[in-house]
Amino acid sequence: SLLPTSTMSAELKAQKRQKFEHVFSVIREELLTHFDGEGMPKDASQWYRSNLDYNVPGGKLNRGMSVVDTVEILKGSALTDDEYFKAAVLGWCIELLQAFFLVSDDIMDSSVTRRGQPCWYRNEHVGLIAINDAFMLEGAIYFLLKKHFRSTSYYVDLLELFHETTYQTEIGQLIDLITAPEDHVDLNKFSLEKHRLIVIYKTAYYSFYLPVALAMYMSGIRPTSGDKDGYALARSILIPLGEYFQIQDDYLDFAGTPEQIGKIGTDIIDNKCSWCINTALAYATPEQRAVLDQNYGRKDAEAEKKVKTVFEEVGVRQKYAVYEEDAYKRIMGLIETIPAGGLGQDGEVKLKREVFKSFLDKIYKRQK
Amino acid sequence: SLLPTSTMSAELKAQKRQKFEHVFSVIREELLTHFDGEGMPKDASQWYRSNLDYNVPGGKLNRGMSVVDTVEILKGSALTDDEYFKAAVLGWCIELLQAFFLVSDDIMDSSVTRRGQPCWYRNEHVGLIAINDAFMLEGAIYFLLKKHFRSTSYYVDLLELFHETTYQTEIGQLIDLITAPEDHVDLNKFSLEKHRLIVIYKTAYYSFYLPVALAMYMSGIRPTSGDKDGYALARSILIPLGEYFQIQDDYLDFAGTPEQIGKIGTDIIDNKCSWCINTALAYATPEQRAVLDQNYGRKDAEAEKKVKTVFEEVGVRQKYAVYEEDAYKRIMGLIETIPAGGLGQDGEVKLKREVFKSFLDKIYKRQK
Ligand SMILES: [Mg+2]
Ligand SMILES: [Mg+2]
Ligand SMILES: [Mg+2]
Ligand SMILES: [Mg+2]
Ligand SMILES: [Mg+2]
Ligand SMILES: [Mg+2]
Repeated sequence: SLLPTSTMSAELKAQKRQKFEHVFSVIREELLTHFDGEGMPKDASQWYRSNLDYNVPGGKLNRGMSVVDTVEILKGSALTDDEYFKAAVLGWCIELLQAFFLVSDDIMDSSVTRRGQPCWYRNEHVGLIAINDAFMLEGAIYFLLKKHFRSTSYYVDLLELFHETTYQTEIGQLIDLITAPEDHVDLNKFSLEKHRLIVIYKTAYYSFYLPVALAMYMSGIRPTSGDKDGYALARSILIPLGEYFQIQDDYLDFAGTPEQIGKIGTDIIDNKCSWCINTALAYATPEQRAVLDQNYGRKDAEAEKKVKTVFEEVGVRQKYAVYEEDAYKRIMGLIETIPAGGLGQDGEVKLKREVFKSFLDKIYKRQK
Repeated sequence: SLLPTSTMSAELKAQKRQKFEHVFSVIREELLTHFDGEGMPKDASQWYRSNLDYNVPGGKLNRGMSVVDTVEILKGSALTDDEYFKAAVLGWCIELLQAFFLVSDDIMDSSVTRRGQPCWYRNEHVGLIAINDAFMLEGAIYFLLKKHFRSTSYYVDLLELFHETTYQTEIGQLIDLITAPEDHVDLNKFSLEKHRLIVIYKTAYYSFYLPVALAMYMSGIRPTSGDKDGYALARSILIPLGEYFQIQDDYLDFAGTPEQIGKIGTDIIDNKCSWCINTALAYATPEQRAVLDQNYGRKDAEAEKKVKTVFEEVGVRQKYAVYEEDAYKRIMGLIETIPAGGLGQDGEVKLKREVFKSFLDKIYKRQK
């Protein structure tokens, strides 16, 4: 739909989600039909089905559905069934990539729950087999791209985009893991600059640039060399947008109520390299810094409270309000570098401001 | 070199290995130069360097070097420096793929040592970060393929070959993990048929088909539809060859002396779905079966001894001798389906029997 999500009724939203979910059931059967066709045992096939069902479709699906939305905006009219299906397959490939990352991240972080259920690796009989299950979720992406896009002119672009985005996310994950190990607190390793790097590599590329770039390829927009490249332009807007999104996420983990964010924030207890701690570190007095050093990342409600008090004292709330206003204006400014009539040759599909505005609208001043 | 390995002097072998290892030092610097160029912190760069150095070059390098050997055989004369380098890059991509699998397999199997040193995840400060380190080894493959092969006509073939081989290996790993979990013995799940499936998917595709297929693409052999396809032919020989190799590996784990195989076999203690146990199960009397059920997969030298006694009683040694002779003849027969002058059009690079004979020669009656 071309309506902004905010003005869409709950019923329409549910319908939209269901339509997208239906495509998952199709590709899941494609994956399992191939698997069974290779002569694999029934118990292995059941296992793979559980892996897919448990880990892929249960999230908010924002990343996946945004591919479909973007293809629709670029086309400027309703998609044919075939166009919808192909865009949705690309969307599910992002959801598979995210599932690959989340299943393995939960193991590395010793997490307990994810999306309201036990983390996959915590299920009986799963354990560290979850590592290979994560691999298979990634492997499924390339099976699907080959099946549905092999004959397109932009097939190799899709492959490279997935390779590069995967590698970028892994690089971000590495920096995060060695900067903020769950079991060893050292705030000297933290900084707003490090935070920025982690956020861009670990989150922004796959969550924001990837869906739009996939939609652009599918819409026939070709990369060009020089300063008119739509992909470079999209990246220059979507990476700051992803950074803003994650800073907001970090802020809400501290300042959002459980009713708002649907969970209890644990970033302080988990030693997360969050925007809040990095902002506090940048402004803390030596006394406040000592409180942070002694209490950050401890599995202890009293310690968490002391950290929150320092956050309030240094004015994290007010600094966030300033950051958000500035980020919004800055990103709007970037979006307005796109010509009002879109970027691209007449007669070809043009990159439009609306693509980016629709992302920004969904994020700005969201409470959850 | 075109000489069979067996007649090559130790000095020549060492030179050959050194030349191949030198290429690793080049691509490692390429990976790190890109990493540093993205503005990553020094400690992360050091970490990635350690990950690469610790996990990629320390093995036998048979898989990687066989790409170079095969390109040389297909060309029929010495390689130029550029040809050597490109073939070696493809070889190192297999070694990276294997490192990705081994680093993660060791975590899933709770292994202690690998290649004479502690498994990577067992190093202090590494732990489960090794999961993401494994991902980065896989990610490095696509960075290197793009850097060195993007402008070739067979680039997309290389990408698809790595995708498919990776997925096949992951599928084999899944079957292995649920058939023979390290901590739960159930011999009812075992069978020679299951063993075959695990071996083909988990080992044969990436160890035997992958190096030859990569060399074929690099040599300009095009896949064709119909029954003259060189890739299908290569697969039809190399998959049985890989099966033979793994059965031999399983056999030597039981029957080889530590001096021969350079380690002490632990397949029985580790509950491995090995050719030996599956053969014993196929021929055991109910009494022998009871001994196997009670003693297989226990961390206990007495239990291991009882299993070995049953292996001797059912005649695993003699059955292996029969299997090996049959496998050798069968694979030779398959190789001889290739026309003596090679498969392919005159004036083009032809697929030669010698490619496969050189593999078979290295394996037949090896003692380690
Ligand atoms: Mg986590
Ligand atoms: Mg994490
Ligand atoms: Mg968060
Ligand atoms: Mg193992
Ligand atoms: Mg294993
Ligand atoms: Mg073995």
